[in-house]
Amino acid sequence: MQVDTSLRSLGIDVHAHVVPSTFPAWLGAGARPAAWPSTVPAHACHCHVMIDRKVYRTVSQKCWNVAERLADLGDMGLRLQALSPMPELLSYWMSASQATPLIRYLNEEIARMVSESGGRLVGLGAVPLQDIDAAIDELRYVMHSLSFAGVEIGSNVNGVPIGDRRFDPFFEACEAMGAAVFVHALKPTGMDRLVGPAPLQQVLAYPTDVGLAAASCLTSNLIVRFPDLRMAFSHGGGTLASLLPRLQQGWQTFPALKTSVDPSPAEQARKLYYDTLVFDAQTLRHLVDRFGASQLLVGTDYPFNFHDRTPIARIAAAGLDTADAHALAYHNAERFLGLETSR
Amino acid sequence: MQVDTSLRSLGIDVHAHVVPSTFPAWLGAGARPAAWPSTVPAHACHCHVMIDRKVYRTVSQKCWNVAERLADLGDMGLRLQALSPMPELLSYWMSASQATPLIRYLNEEIARMVSESGGRLVGLGAVPLQDIDAAIDELRYVMHSLSFAGVEIGSNVNGVPIGDRRFDPFFEACEAMGAAVFVHALKPTGMDRLVGPAPLQQVLAYPTDVGLAAASCLTSNLIVRFPDLRMAFSHGGGTLASLLPRLQQGWQTFPALKTSVDPSPAEQARKLYYDTLVFDAQTLRHLVDRFGASQLLVGTDYPFNFHDRTPIARIAAAGLDTADAHALAYHNAERFLGLETSR
Repeated sequence: MQVDTSLRSLGIDVHAHVVPSTFPAWLGAGARPAAWPSTVPAHACHCHVMIDRKVYRTVSQKCWNVAERLADLGDMGLRLQALSPMPELLSYWMSASQATPLIRYLNEEIARMVSESGGRLVGLGAVPLQDIDAAIDELRYVMHSLSFAGVEIGSNVNGVPIGDRRFDPFFEACEAMGAAVFVHALKPTGMDRLVGPAPLQQVLAYPTDVGLAAASCLTSNLIVRFPDLRMAFSHGGGTLASLLPRLQQGWQTFPALKTSVDPSPAEQARKLYYDTLVFDAQTLRHLVDRFGASQLLVGTDYPFNFHDRTPIARIAAAGLDTADAHALAYHNAERFLGLETSR
Repeated sequence: MQVDTSLRSLGIDVHAHVVPSTFPAWLGAGARPAAWPSTVPAHACHCHVMIDRKVYRTVSQKCWNVAERLADLGDMGLRLQALSPMPELLSYWMSASQATPLIRYLNEEIARMVSESGGRLVGLGAVPLQDIDAAIDELRYVMHSLSFAGVEIGSNVNGVPIGDRRFDPFFEACEAMGAAVFVHALKPTGMDRLVGPAPLQQVLAYPTDVGLAAASCLTSNLIVRFPDLRMAFSHGGGTLASLLPRLQQGWQTFPALKTSVDPSPAEQARKLYYDTLVFDAQTLRHLVDRFGASQLLVGTDYPFNFHDRTPIARIAAAGLDTADAHALAYHNAERFLGLETSR
């Protein structure tokens, strides 16, 4: 794909991940939880991330090496990238007291990478969302002490979708502190509906879970309760684009939905953000029509194997007008990440 | 919406349901299962369908009354409609010996309605798919004795997605008998991800389940094993349109997928059928781009509350050329239902 030269090197990627090269052996009291991660060397420049005594994923040193990452940004047409933890490290399934030191370690690693980047990386930290108070404490730390742009959270927390009202105090704090919230698919539903090899979890169940998570925010009026919250969903909002017209019609049909959701799901959906990680220019165009050109942000899933290597070229191929293409490539991300006010 | 006059009264609807006005008290031996349905009168011209001692749904007499149904077909721009049971009646959750007499009763009711319709209704019967042999027996009955066009099956059978290889003998029989297979969402996954009132099961979880069911057929190469099978998915294939570009990219990325799925998911997807029940002309257009104009069929969900009252007008509004609009309105359905050879 030809990259529109006016877009080249301007892009901002809000969906890119970090894995530290090593993890502390164990930072808590008592027995080390099986889910506590570790790394062991793999083939050249790679390590295995071990979770529950199994290889969870084999990752390249680009996960922690800033110099290599910065070299790749240019190739992808990016000037800036937001770093968030590999979602499996969010550790909602440990107790909060077990997870909090690990999450702090992750956040400090992200802060180190940001500090070494010459302004080309920004941070989206982790919080122990299985404990709302602890999550707000860590949110305060990453926003005030580490100057992160915001946080990454899972599409569900131990099976509870993030539109559930129990998370309201956390989102209220995010809104108050101006933290961008990047929602990433995690421990997805629908696993029992897959027929095929293990990667289908990422390939099919991830977008399913993040689509339902986004829908849960619409049906609970999250953005109405927190109108200044800036929230983005991974994988182009997953299946939400397919669900939304039916949700809108259902809202017009069923009084129970009409009375509980206000304004309409379609209107609320245009106040949330979605990344561009859909691997298809025509689908990207469909997302623009559905959610609005002001709501799409570059997302690549860098540096994992299954990442979008041509995010800016794909925007250029989507047949958008120049203003919309620039909005998708970086303007919207500046707004989402809160970079407009600091420049 | 304006209906293209060249399309008016030509449409064929493959997604419309039947509920009998009454059910037999109990046709099996031993205790009556709680899931055995019954009806009780509701407000004028309506009855409550009782399942598990609760009102499952309140439905109008259009569910069983042929004259009223035929009068409505014209208003929707339809000349023909395929009848299938309300999916909750498919009764996979009873033992096959309990379900089979109920399913036979449903099929006879559909046959009665078809016989009263003057050729404007065709049948898509039920089969007890919890028992493959019993399902093939009933398939033979509806195809050979009742002259149905095919069958309706659920997107999963007690949680097992229909792409699972255990169903191969059934699909082999469908292919051999020339039975159209209409796959309808049922008992969906993802219920724990919903935040809001009960209709969200139909609104959000149904399209989620049918999307994953369609994906399970792609990842198991179902249409490769049974190339002459004619299979259609409800609700526009649900979330499949959102999942497919990512599945295609994942197939190119992960060797485990590349070696097990052949040809590509995107190519296989263009050999399955999908109904038009997406309530949005732009989304319909997106489905045509994704799956091909030869693969979309009118589906309305008539006569339930949440049905598409303007299916032909929506096709006319999708910006298709004349040949494609006619393909969606009726040509594809003639092919799917096997009506071409019998005319």
